[in-house]
Amino acid sequence: MDIPTYADVEAAHARIALHIHRTPILTSSFINDLTGAELFFKCENFQKAGAFKARGASNAVFGLDEKMAKVGVATHSSGNHALSLSYAAGKRGIPVTVVMPRTAPEPKKAAVRGYGGHIVECEPSTSSREAVFAEVVAETGAEFVHPYNDPRVIAGQGTCSKEMVEDLGELDAVVAPIGGGGMVSGCCLTLSTIAPKTKIYAAEPKNADDAYRSFKAGRIIADDAPQTVADGLKVPLKELTWHFVSKHVEDIFTATEEEIVAAMRLIWERMKIVMEPSSAVPLAAILKNKELFAGKRVGVIVTGGNVDLGKLPWAQS
Amino acid sequence: MDIPTYADVEAAHARIALHIHRTPILTSSFINDLTGAELFFKCENFQKAGAFKARGASNAVFGLDEKMAKVGVATHSSGNHALSLSYAAGKRGIPVTVVMPRTAPEPKKAAVRGYGGHIVECEPSTSSREAVFAEVVAETGAEFVHPYNDPRVIAGQGTCSKEMVEDLGELDAVVAPIGGGGMVSGCCLTLSTIAPKTKIYAAEPKNADDAYRSFKAGRIIADDAPQTVADGLKVPLKELTWHFVSKHVEDIFTATEEEIVAAMRLIWERMKIVMEPSSAVPLAAILKNKELFAGKRVGVIVTGGNVDLGKLPWAQS
Repeated sequence: MDIPTYADVEAAHARIALHIHRTPILTSSFINDLTGAELFFKCENFQKAGAFKARGASNAVFGLDEKMAKVGVATHSSGNHALSLSYAAGKRGIPVTVVMPRTAPEPKKAAVRGYGGHIVECEPSTSSREAVFAEVVAETGAEFVHPYNDPRVIAGQGTCSKEMVEDLGELDAVVAPIGGGGMVSGCCLTLSTIAPKTKIYAAEPKNADDAYRSFKAGRIIADDAPQTVADGLKVPLKELTWHFVSKHVEDIFTATEEEIVAAMRLIWERMKIVMEPSSAVPLAAILKNKELFAGKRVGVIVTGGNVDLGKLPWAQS
Repeated sequence: MDIPTYADVEAAHARIALHIHRTPILTSSFINDLTGAELFFKCENFQKAGAFKARGASNAVFGLDEKMAKVGVATHSSGNHALSLSYAAGKRGIPVTVVMPRTAPEPKKAAVRGYGGHIVECEPSTSSREAVFAEVVAETGAEFVHPYNDPRVIAGQGTCSKEMVEDLGELDAVVAPIGGGGMVSGCCLTLSTIAPKTKIYAAEPKNADDAYRSFKAGRIIADDAPQTVADGLKVPLKELTWHFVSKHVEDIFTATEEEIVAAMRLIWERMKIVMEPSSAVPLAAILKNKELFAGKRVGVIVTGGNVDLGKLPWAQS
């Protein structure tokens, strides 16, 4: 297993600087009053392609040698990594094929195509996704850039918490959503090196709590096709992200669908930013565990802003 | 008529600095490509109380002498000024009464109460609003802070374009929504003094185009209770804002309801910010008049972000 180091994060930051935004960090006095903590929202919803995944994807794409770059890249993704890899490949001008569940939000599919990505659809389950993807790689010979179980991707995601430490100094804690664990692994890699006192928490939908159960059991437990409004967090941990999560994460919290939607609406209403349900899971977790965060300086990773505005989760209510 | 000067804008900026945000300026490469212009979005949706009106209201409230402050302030407003005056009065700890149409969005009413404001309801027409308000002032003796036809308020709004010039230098043009004309008057006051080459354009809903018709006729034309999704722009010009608009505005554009909603959705989807329908009218106008703005550096004032998330204008479609 090729485990990335903090030197890889530094190299990634230099490599991708021209292709990503250094995203702003926003605060809300209302939400601080509500939680009793001092929260710093790192707004990756304003990132290129609308999510932090542009960091890891850009690091992978711009790190390829010329020969491999000409053949192109391929991936499978519930959405944001597909979009981000298409963005990065488009920037470099190389071919990109993405396997996406047919149920993925239409705006994400349109955006992938807008960046020049070629989409092959699969069923909305991990097993179907992996089977269809194997066919694609066999046909194209493209370089596989996994959405999270890839040292280049994790090093790229590690640049996000690097920027937080540069802008805010050492925080008491950082809370990030966990699906496959790419962002959390990037936080582990960076923070354990340059801000070792910062506690790293992950937040997960109760409906897709495989990371929580893995963490408690001490081994990877994977679910096939869990259902949650936080559609970026359905995928399971893999060996590389498990390495970081099991080693550096302080605890994992879960939140119900109702708690996620309420936290999402609170952020939209008070902070005036558009973000995905997945990005609301950390605030939902903080609101449930106020005593743990009270009086603390806490970084919150707003992972992305790609949401179907025609199907907001409170529209049914 | 007491006409504010640029010295009043400078005094306002010093007076309110502790009570307002210096709001960020965002850009979108996608929307730049779409319009052919270089657009700079001044994000007053991130302002205290969710709108630029916190500037003028704070200038009025913090400029009161101790005696008048104790009696308190009062106003009538379709929403954001009510909220902003309540915010500013709450900050200073003085009484505030606001007359609001009974049809005003529920989140705005709740926020006014949250800041400690006392609400008296009226019918949703200019005539009813003014009649009810006269009673309130007679009863309370409070200092009237008009939402826009007030030199203290206009000087406060002028701090917004002052920040744009400080951050971006002299722009080719600025486009702002026009209702009563407070923001546009503030732009006129500031830009005509410190950036005289910047052309000032106003953008208005076609369904509430009294400013457009006034501008073309050379005199104030007021409508009673026009209907538009841009609910912050229903009010008519008054003598003080007419002074600035008639003297310094280059032209006024109108946009249909469909154009406003499409521009709003485009900004939400691509820029990941929550803003009101009123704030989308400038982009709708730019998209209709691309040739005028192509190749130009254009400031766009995103006036506010207070929108009922349960009733988004595209939810019906």
